[in-house]
Amino acid sequence: MRLTTLCYIEKEDRVLMLHRVRKKHDENEGKWIGVGGHMEPGESPDECIRRETLEETGLRLRDCRLRGVITFILPDWGDELTFLYTAAADGELTGDCWEGVLRWVPWDEVPSLPLWEGDRVFLPLLKSRTECFELKLVYAPGGALVRCVLDGETIPCPGAGKS
Amino acid sequence: MRLTTLCYIEKEDRVLMLHRVRKKHDENEGKWIGVGGHMEPGESPDECIRRETLEETGLRLRDCRLRGVITFILPDWGDELTFLYTAAADGELTGDCWEGVLRWVPWDEVPSLPLWEGDRVFLPLLKSRTECFELKLVYAPGGALVRCVLDGETIPCPGAGKS
Repeated sequence: MRLTTLCYIEKEDRVLMLHRVRKKHDENEGKWIGVGGHMEPGESPDECIRRETLEETGLRLRDCRLRGVITFILPDWGDELTFLYTAAADGELTGDCWEGVLRWVPWDEVPSLPLWEGDRVFLPLLKSRTECFELKLVYAPGGALVRCVLDGETIPCPGAGKS
Repeated sequence: MRLTTLCYIEKEDRVLMLHRVRKKHDENEGKWIGVGGHMEPGESPDECIRRETLEETGLRLRDCRLRGVITFILPDWGDELTFLYTAAADGELTGDCWEGVLRWVPWDEVPSLPLWEGDRVFLPLLKSRTECFELKLVYAPGGALVRCVLDGETIPCPGAGKS
């Protein structure tokens, strides 16, 4: 199972989003997501998200909090276990992220962006939940979200599938 | 990296401990630990700990809470990423765990048991912390605990090495 980290960096009422438009053969192509990446050998999730954020944005994380653990079942791409964070950050955006375009987006505009359907499940949890949650998101081949399990309980999937 | 789960099941002032004395070539031989095991393909950490607990003890978990994520650096055994839980449980102990002997141990007697040195770091956190923590425990070849990092901050290692 691939091990990844994902962070939504907040500044006042905005959040740093990465528009994935630069990477070839990218499962996230065209989508807006947070920053993050794959864990390297010997690295903890916390170390990974700090390194990835620095590499992708030039920012150093502070007040970094583990908010959730997400098990993605992705028949098209291989299953993935993601450590989800929120944080604040110091420094200036370097703006040369090779994976896409970085933009501070007001939180209330995020739902109107092209997102994975599963992100529409966990992003609101960053606002409504204080305790770390566990989420399982099961996608079907082709990319439709077909099952969501939050802390052991099946919950409705948003929308009719992944846009 | 191996993905595992570990749960300390509480009943009143006692906790279910597994004395690992039955499994051959066991990195935990002779130690007392919680119940748990390896994640299977397609399984979330939550699903894993419920399955492992049922298999090892006959108990069904309830009020299962993710309390910490631990990155073990283990040169002798291979690195491991562990999801740490506390829970309550329903049902009766089947008592035929093939990995060792199960016993309800009063919490205040746990420190006197043979434990991994790192367990002496995270077990108190189950009492002192409410938010999910991240811990990195670095062992040297031979089994001495040489570095502890809690939520990104290096903290003192307990004792002089792994007993």
